[in-house]
Amino acid sequence: MTTTDNGRRELSVADMFNSTVAAAALGAAWELGALDELHRVGALDVDSFATEGELHLPSVEEMFRALASVGIVERDNRKVRPGRAFAAAYRAKPLFYWLWQGSGELFARMPALLRNANRIGTFYHRDAKAVSYASRQANATFFDPVFRQAMRPLEGRFSTVVDLGSGSGERVIQIAEENPAVRAYGLDIADEVVAMANEEAERRGLADRVTFLTADVRELSPRPEFAGTELLTCFMMGHDLWPRDEAIVSLRRLRELFPNVRRFLLGDTVRTVGIPDEEIPVFTLGFELGHTLMGQYLPTAEEWRGVFAEGGWRCVGEHGSDVLAGTVVFELE
Amino acid sequence: MTTTDNGRRELSVADMFNSTVAAAALGAAWELGALDELHRVGALDVDSFATEGELHLPSVEEMFRALASVGIVERDNRKVRPGRAFAAAYRAKPLFYWLWQGSGELFARMPALLRNANRIGTFYHRDAKAVSYASRQANATFFDPVFRQAMRPLEGRFSTVVDLGSGSGERVIQIAEENPAVRAYGLDIADEVVAMANEEAERRGLADRVTFLTADVRELSPRPEFAGTELLTCFMMGHDLWPRDEAIVSLRRLRELFPNVRRFLLGDTVRTVGIPDEEIPVFTLGFELGHTLMGQYLPTAEEWRGVFAEGGWRCVGEHGSDVLAGTVVFELE
Ligand SMILES: C[S@@+](CC[C@H](N)C(=O)[O-])C[C@H]1O[C@@H](n2cnc3c(N)ncnc32)[C@H](O)[C@@H]1O
Ligand SMILES: C[S@@+](CC[C@H](N)C(=O)[O-])C[C@H]1O[C@@H](n2cnc3c(N)ncnc32)[C@H](O)[C@@H]1O
Repeated sequence: MTTTDNGRRELSVADMFNSTVAAAALGAAWELGALDELHRVGALDVDSFATEGELHLPSVEEMFRALASVGIVERDNRKVRPGRAFAAAYRAKPLFYWLWQGSGELFARMPALLRNANRIGTFYHRDAKAVSYASRQANATFFDPVFRQAMRPLEGRFSTVVDLGSGSGERVIQIAEENPAVRAYGLDIADEVVAMANEEAERRGLADRVTFLTADVRELSPRPEFAGTELLTCFMMGHDLWPRDEAIVSLRRLRELFPNVRRFLLGDTVRTVGIPDEEIPVFTLGFELGHTLMGQYLPTAEEWRGVFAEGGWRCVGEHGSDVLAGTVVFELE
Repeated sequence: MTTTDNGRRELSVADMFNSTVAAAALGAAWELGALDELHRVGALDVDSFATEGELHLPSVEEMFRALASVGIVERDNRKVRPGRAFAAAYRAKPLFYWLWQGSGELFARMPALLRNANRIGTFYHRDAKAVSYASRQANATFFDPVFRQAMRPLEGRFSTVVDLGSGSGERVIQIAEENPAVRAYGLDIADEVVAMANEEAERRGLADRVTFLTADVRELSPRPEFAGTELLTCFMMGHDLWPRDEAIVSLRRLRELFPNVRRFLLGDTVRTVGIPDEEIPVFTLGFELGHTLMGQYLPTAEEWRGVFAEGGWRCVGEHGSDVLAGTVVFELE
């Protein structure tokens, strides 16, 4: 592997092959606690790690060898230490987990999924539990800093918040914890997810102020509770409101259903534009290819900007992520 | 990505992530004929490629983008051309297909498969059809040159050949085609594989001289047909005879069952030894980690050399592959 004069990367096929294996090993090392131990302690003994975790020792050794092949760890006898790529890989771990453990079947079946004849009915499958495990961590690492930045000026200035597509409910629960007087609602289309989120709110002693309801954001009906809402939030599901015409209808309906809203924080990972093929940053390629394979539309930031006015909203601010390309929070009013 | 003073590779997490996605795309591009078209014609039009193949155009574009992200192709408007990594990737395509399309589920489930508690019963699954599609091409690209080299001195010097673990039967059929007077048998443990191989022999007009039989090589019984056999071959299944004690028993039994054999060509991909973690060549890491996850023993070349004498054979030659690490053909007598 060398770098050409014009700065382009020259990966060997061995680099590509070993990266693919290491990407799968990274998810395993994360789930089994090896990454956190290396991050915390700075070293790990292979044998005691396998024994304590009741793990298959030869496979554990091969897992660390895979990570070592691309510099994520270094091996020295029976000791494993962080390698020069460790810090970056540790940060990006949920993105790799999303790719291999969450979406492995989707990507493995790419040859079949490219054929139109196979794209009917339920034509793909992913590991929903692994996707949500990855999303939770990706959220904490990549979205929270941007979200907090957008939230700061609003602290203490709202009494009711509604979160659209609330998923695990973690974000709604955090808002409620940090704003003790606030009433919070989370809406999600998936019953199981709503039930789990309500249990979590109960467990954290917030059941009196935090409620999760099953609802399709695209076909929301008025509710007395919504009337006083001053803050709307919606994270990592905005693209489900597309294509364009439907997104405009949904935005308009939200405007009508929540007449007192002063701020609508809409955060999503959008389709990137104009990145040269050999400079694509981490995650972007998998996220965009994955959604295309699944037949799910991903609007660009520009396409989003082009629907707000017609949807009845004004965009007064935009926060981007420095570390995850395409991740943006729009501040609407 | 830069190269350090001591020549080690520094892959960025974006390199690793994009390599993983590109590895999946390579298998798709191969299966759908894009790689062969680029290899033959040197260019391809995205739109007509999608139309002619009845493929999902947005996914096709993303597939080429993935290949372009690591230099396998270059994109220029609606045209795709081979990139600087094309030749190497074209050659290695069955190895990537083995990894993602054939063994994707195995590698995706690495976190679960590392736990001893999960390693009971039928604990893993692979796509057998995809594995055999990959093996056939890997055979032609990587094994055939070594096999032919070992076969050359034997041409015209044998009348009956028996192939152990004959799989698709392709190698046995080739030997019969190139040696018109020879009687050839193939033995395989899998009924379906034997049936398919017999059909193929019939199709190629060789049914009178080529026969495939269902048999477990580890527990073979004497057959009158075997008596005159002068040549034994066994490719990519020798490691199934291990662990050591069992391999010795099998080798001894073969010696008794085939008393007239003058040559036994035993070819396999063995476990490598002593390769520094950051210099692992293509395939090795995935092949060795994969077999470890599946709980299948892979002997090293040294371990093989250590069983021949006890097994009743003398090793008179050894042919290695320049292009696929660990691939070796032992010449026994
Ligand atoms: C990627 S998750 C994000 C969850 C959460 N907002 C977060 O940031 O972690 C998307 C969520 O949106 C929900 N969802 C998708 N379409 C929806 C719709 N039309 N109405 C309500 N919820 C929807 C899904 O069930 C899922 O829980
Ligand atoms: C990787 S394939 C190789 C096929 C073929 N020799 C080739 O080189 O393409 C291994 C084959 O060995 C067969 N096999 C595995 N264990 C066996 C055994 N104990 N007896 C006979 N065949 C066996 C499998 O069914 C499979 O078809």
